[in-house]
This record gives sequence, structure tokens and C-alpha cells, in this order.
Amino acid sequence: MIRGQPTMFSGLSAFPLTPMNQSGIDEAAFVRLVERLADAGVDSIGALGSTGSYAYLTRAERMRTAQLAVKHAGEVPVIIGIGALRTRDVLALAEDAQKAGASGVLLAPMSYQKLSADEVFALYETVTRSLSVPLCVYDNPTTTHFEFSDELHERIAQLPNVRSIKIPGVPVEPRAARARVERLRALVPPQVTIGVSGDALAATGLNAGCEVWYSVIGGLFPRAALAITRAAQAGDVQEATRLSERLRPLWALFDQHGGSLRVVAAAAELRGLAEHPTLPLPLKTLEGADRQQLAALLDELDLA
Amino acid sequence: MIRGQPTMFSGLSAFPLTPMNQSGIDEAAFVRLVERLADAGVDSIGALGSTGSYAYLTRAERMRTAQLAVKHAGEVPVIIGIGALRTRDVLALAEDAQKAGASGVLLAPMSYQKLSADEVFALYETVTRSLSVPLCVYDNPTTTHFEFSDELHERIAQLPNVRSIKIPGVPVEPRAARARVERLRALVPPQVTIGVSGDALAATGLNAGCEVWYSVIGGLFPRAALAITRAAQAGDVQEATRLSERLRPLWALFDQHGGSLRVVAAAAELRGLAEHPTLPLPLKTLEGADRQQLAALLDELDLA
Repeated sequence: MIRGQPTMFSGLSAFPLTPMNQSGIDEAAFVRLVERLADAGVDSIGALGSTGSYAYLTRAERMRTAQLAVKHAGEVPVIIGIGALRTRDVLALAEDAQKAGASGVLLAPMSYQKLSADEVFALYETVTRSLSVPLCVYDNPTTTHFEFSDELHERIAQLPNVRSIKIPGVPVEPRAARARVERLRALVPPQVTIGVSGDALAATGLNAGCEVWYSVIGGLFPRAALAITRAAQAGDVQEATRLSERLRPLWALFDQHGGSLRVVAAAAELRGLAEHPTLPLPLKTLEGADRQQLAALLDELDLA
Repeated sequence: MIRGQPTMFSGLSAFPLTPMNQSGIDEAAFVRLVERLADAGVDSIGALGSTGSYAYLTRAERMRTAQLAVKHAGEVPVIIGIGALRTRDVLALAEDAQKAGASGVLLAPMSYQKLSADEVFALYETVTRSLSVPLCVYDNPTTTHFEFSDELHERIAQLPNVRSIKIPGVPVEPRAARARVERLRALVPPQVTIGVSGDALAATGLNAGCEVWYSVIGGLFPRAALAITRAAQAGDVQEATRLSERLRPLWALFDQHGGSLRVVAAAAELRGLAEHPTLPLPLKTLEGADRQQLAALLDELDLA
């Protein structure tokens, strides 16, 4: 059962790809993805997340993508990723996102040199001070190589405008997952929601009390992700679990290909929602037998 | 003893900081550092390496820094770091570096999404095809989070224009270090030199047969690094080791502060060679007691 009042940071937050083509952003394909999400009725759209390849785009490309997302999202609030290696750039991106009409922003502590907890705290302190929209803390050690301690989450969650924490997953075992979510919740103010990411753990996280699923698969196949989310929101633990288990072969492919991005990018290409190659080089989508296996799986799972 | 003929990728390659100030690059301070290196007679200058904070700068800032390095390096060859998350940007930076007059380039496979070996090979294949200057492969898992296998080094070393590999260190034990260098050397063509980085392991690496030391401390205190390098080049294993051991308290500070960057940046500030704060936020240099400890150590070691 999910607690609290609905906010932008509750329910299903769907993270679309930012499809590329030879001249840059494939704007038509991106707009199509955003409209799919709005039509499906997701609770928010997380543009320029890791799935949206924010780290690979120029400031101008990110501004344009943010504008397109807001323009085509209808009534659905748009959250824009503003992460960058340098505080100066994060501040500029925060300003751009707000100008573009973002309802909220998402900030990961990207790193090249390994960051200390004090450096990360100072980053969030500086950025939240300049914001006039709510912020979600993006905790993703796989890409940022920074590990948040619970103590640091507690400190950052007190800062103005912080309204959610996107955690990288929960323990697989339901009681351990619930304990994890409750431990973190006890440290953060009531206005801060806790959101699960790592699609394979989403049902477990929602069932354990996370208010929101920051979802990769929801950015491409929103109806499948909404079904899981709505079941969990209604307190139907078993149905949420069943629907997630059904997608287990997809989660296995995520593991096999170094995360979700290459798989969802290939799925978008296979479904005619993006042109190959849709990822920014050096990243590649699936090829050959892997791609055929994914195509068969999408059909089998009726993901379209 | 160090084998082979001298090339740009042999001896001491000194990596200066790129000092910052409120308006961007502190050009006067950078020029002063480059001139110090040229005056000291280092064998090459590695501008815009990790120590030069390449990952945190805009393309325009990197172009300007490369131009200043070449202009003020005198006869010393300049190697320019061209790493970026995206192949498109690496190609643009390679072009800029060559236009600026770089004698060589240094390329690390920076990552946000974890890269596969095939993706990294394709990156080097694409970039080396477009180059007209030699390239050094920059293997630094601490910052790139990519681990080169020896097999991948072997494949990349066959590509046109590849002339050196900057390895992240060698085993501490001298025989193991020699075995490591020899194993890699057997896999790469004779025109490709092997360079050690990780200053604490430099004497061990040079003594084990590395032709070049890609040096952080050499970018700030070139005479101390040259003394170690020249001893090793002359086959004086014991003297190279003794001179490196003398600096052990400095190597210990590197370990203590998450790598060399924050320590050398603070040292530059303490020696009046850069203004505080010289690093790009969110990165911070040493403060308080740590800074005082470093100041005392620099005096004790007579590093000026």
C-alpha cells in the first residue's frame, strides 16, 4: 500500500529515451514517445534521465528536449534531469529546465573524480537554493559511482525544494525491502517521497511502500508499467508481483546487456518508435542474435 | 633500464593542473605552470589530462587551454586529452587539439553508461582513423570505470597512430611489476611505449621497464619527478627508488584524499601557483588541518 497524497513524485514516473539520428536529436521520434506516455496516463514524465541519455547531450540539445517534452506532455508534469559533472553546468541546466516549463528536476551527482559526501552535499545545497521547482535526488551508483549513505540522504532531504529520492532498488526479499524503505523514510521529512528504480525491483519496491516507480520500461511501454503500478497502489501485492514476474525475461536481458538502456533502445527500434542507431555512440543497441531474441520476447510478452 | 628510442611518449610526461578562477580558466596561472615545465626540461607536457580537469571543461575552454599549452611549451611536445562521453565530441576535440598544434593526443574511454569492450574498441577505431598525430591510450579505471583487458589493449595497439599506453600502475613488488610490463609489451607492436601512472608506483614502473611516467607530481614539481625519471633511465634502480620513497608521505596523502588531484591542487594554491579555489566545483581542495599538514610536508620535502 502506498502512503501519502498524490504528488508529481508518486505513482508511475515514465522515463523516455531521447532518440538520436545523424543530425542530432530525432525530435519526431521523441515527441511520439512523449505523446504515448501522456495518452497512456502516466503520472509524470522523466525526460533526460539516464534512459534519456542526458549525460551525452549538449546544453542546447537538453534545452530543446526539455521544451519538446513539456510541449507534448499535455497535463502530465515533466521532470527534467539536470545532472552534469560540474556545479556551474548543473546550475545552468536547472535554469534552462525551469525556463522550459519543467514541473520538477532530477539531479544525480555525476562524477569523473570520485566525489566525497561533503562535495555532494554542497552540490545539492547550492542547486536547491537556486530552484523554484521541486527536486528529486537521483541515487544511481551504477552510473555516478557515488554511494549515498542514509545519513547523507537525511541531510540532503532537509534542503529546500527536495521532494523525492530515487533509490537504486530495494532488497529482493519483501520484508527486507519494507525494512529498507521504512529505515529511509524515518530519516526524511514527510514531504519527501521515496521512489524505486531498477525495473526488476519495482513491484517489490512499490509493495514495500515506495510511493513512486521511476521507470525505464514505463517510458516505452507505459501500459505494462501502469498495470503494475496501479495494482500496487490498490494494495494488490500479488497482482503487482504477478505482472512483474511475467516480464522477468526482459529483466534478465537488462542484466545481460549491462543495464536497461541498450535493451529499451533496441526495443524502440524494433517497434518502429526510433530509428537504428538511436543511441549516442560509443553506446550500441543490441545486434544479431541478441536483437532477434528481444524481438521474439516483445511479441511473446505482447509489448507494443 | 628503459628500452627503445626517445619519443614524445618516453621519459617524463608532466601533467599540469588547469587552474580555475571565477571567470573560468585562470590563464595566467596555467601559462605559468606550462612555462615551469618547459624550463625544467620535461620530455612532454600532458595538458588536459585528469589532473587538468578535462572532463569538467567546455569545448571552447579546452581549445583555449590547448592553444595556451602549445604556445608556452617552447620545444616541448604537448599531448592533449580528448576524452568525452560521446564519440561525436571526441572527434571534435581531436580536431581542435590538432588545430591547436598538439603533438599527440590522450584518450580515455570516459563512461556514464558502462561500456563494453566492443564499444571501446570501436571508439578508438573511429578516432584513430581521423587522426594525423599519435595517440596514447589512457587506461584509468578509477575515473572511467572501464577495465581494459590485455586482449583489448592488444587489439587497440594495432590501430593506426597508437603509440603509447598509459597504464594505471604496476604491482608493488619489482619482479611482479617487471612481469606485468613484459606481459603487456609482448602483446603490442614495438612502436607502442608503455607508460606508468599513479605517482606512487612510478619508480617501480620505470624500473620495471616502462618507457614513460605520466606524472601528476611532475606537472607541479617537475624537478622532483625528473630526478626520479633520470635515475631510472640511467639504470640506477636504487636511486630512483630512494627518491620515490622520500616522497612517500605525499603518496599517502593522495590515498587519503581520494587521489592526487585535490592534493596537488592544494599544493599549487599553497605555493602561490594557483588561486584558491582552483578546482571546478563540486570538487574541493584540502581545507583546515589537512591543508596545514600538506603545507608542512611541502616544506619538509623541499617541494617548491
